[in-house]
Amino acid sequence: MRQYSDLKPGMPIGVFDSGIGGLTVAREIMRQMPNEKIVYFGDTARVPYGSKSKETVTRYSRQIVRFLLDQKVKAVAIACNTASAYALPEIEKECPVPVIGVIRPGARTACSCTRNGRIGVIGTRATVSSGSYTDFIHEIMPEAEVFAQACPLFVPLVEEGLWEDPVTDEIARRYMASLLDHGIDTLIMGCTHYPLIRKTIGRAAGEKISLINPAYETAMELRHMLEELKLLSDQRPFLGSTTPQYRFYVSDMAEQFQQFANSIIKYGILASEKIDIYHYSGEPLSAGRKV
Amino acid sequence: MRQYSDLKPGMPIGVFDSGIGGLTVAREIMRQMPNEKIVYFGDTARVPYGSKSKETVTRYSRQIVRFLLDQKVKAVAIACNTASAYALPEIEKECPVPVIGVIRPGARTACSCTRNGRIGVIGTRATVSSGSYTDFIHEIMPEAEVFAQACPLFVPLVEEGLWEDPVTDEIARRYMASLLDHGIDTLIMGCTHYPLIRKTIGRAAGEKISLINPAYETAMELRHMLEELKLLSDQRPFLGSTTPQYRFYVSDMAEQFQQFANSIIKYGILASEKIDIYHYSGEPLSAGRKV
Repeated sequence: MRQYSDLKPGMPIGVFDSGIGGLTVAREIMRQMPNEKIVYFGDTARVPYGSKSKETVTRYSRQIVRFLLDQKVKAVAIACNTASAYALPEIEKECPVPVIGVIRPGARTACSCTRNGRIGVIGTRATVSSGSYTDFIHEIMPEAEVFAQACPLFVPLVEEGLWEDPVTDEIARRYMASLLDHGIDTLIMGCTHYPLIRKTIGRAAGEKISLINPAYETAMELRHMLEELKLLSDQRPFLGSTTPQYRFYVSDMAEQFQQFANSIIKYGILASEKIDIYHYSGEPLSAGRKV
Repeated sequence: MRQYSDLKPGMPIGVFDSGIGGLTVAREIMRQMPNEKIVYFGDTARVPYGSKSKETVTRYSRQIVRFLLDQKVKAVAIACNTASAYALPEIEKECPVPVIGVIRPGARTACSCTRNGRIGVIGTRATVSSGSYTDFIHEIMPEAEVFAQACPLFVPLVEEGLWEDPVTDEIARRYMASLLDHGIDTLIMGCTHYPLIRKTIGRAAGEKISLINPAYETAMELRHMLEELKLLSDQRPFLGSTTPQYRFYVSDMAEQFQQFANSIIKYGILASEKIDIYHYSGEPLSAGRKV
């Protein structure tokens, strides 16, 4: 295991996403590790990532990791399935702090859940075409059969608030049809927006299928990783500190972000700040922490 | 009228959009001005603009205009309603070549079409909240009553190919309901994607409402502007030229762009090229043509 001698348990965890969806991962980290500080970045000026290329998503991810390293984070959680699928391999190699994505934890849980070895994956077009879930599942369970379905309309439907709506039900039924034909017994919700319409997806999938939310597993795995590295914080951040425990940054539309964020995180998001992410280089991360 | 002594009729027209929608404007320019060369830029790495802020959209637009000026264009057509609403006033002031947006031509036609002075506008959230259509309509027809409705799900539905689909019909009915209550007789399709689902919008609006497509009017107005400036090309580009008459550039996903483009433009898009738009400054355009 790599050593990270300059990192301290009191440093924050960096979490990033293309926008708001990664808040479901941040929420799990808050629940499972209440002593941790979090710096969250949502790339609202360039959302969504799910229809963009590997090269572009990797470039954007590097810019954001540079920003998070500037915030002196002790670890980075890539809370976006598309960025995890496309950029994690490069970021992991280049980054001077430990990095976790959402795909490996999701794949692991699906493998421990399935009884018949037939696993479904739903996600953005980019996540599905990357084949990342399939690859990780086959590493753990070579005999598994994986069936993936891109669901590009789910993100706009969630963002428009149609969480319980006949239109979303109809779209979910269409997306689910071929997966059900394949006899899957486990379904990975491979996009951070999807847990917000878990009920709709559950109705379309039927009662017998286990729904996997990688956000939960990612927070668990991050906790274990920090424990092993002796980087888990064992005390509540000092309440009188001038720096809040949870800090939220976006690249655009700070006010709308805050409204949405407050609707899904119950810890109270006092403020979010707009960052000029274009100033950070999108070139491969150097060994140091330079911008 | 400003003079543009260094511009020549043989130079191309620059057209840009957040992605593919602006091709409906390029198509009209091709139809109405077959002698003109076109350089098209689609910002597919940062699409969509409709949910982003004025500041961000203006920054992106300036970068693209810098790229187009590098291509020695004689005029710029902002073929995106959101960018026209947010960035046109600044770009017009700063740009060393004439600039046209899609909103003023759309507003003008709506005013000449309406019988009862009640005009509906549908568009992205950004276009609607900018109030640009309302402002231009009131300049021409102060007594008009304008009713605007944001239709944020139309763009993803169009991009997913659900042009003739009961789901799109249902969403269109919901968006149209309050506009119909207001008794509009004219409806501006204030987003370049919408003409692609003109039939669906027409069904939801009913037969008595005139549908305005600003793309058509924009090309007409551009033609008049070039004529007045003596910049209209009066001869077909030389067929043996090494530079094609129509050039297409994108910031990401060149291949997908081409597929979609070929489905809506019948002139044959031979190639599209990916451009690193991040290298162009987003600061206000200087008087010169420097990057």
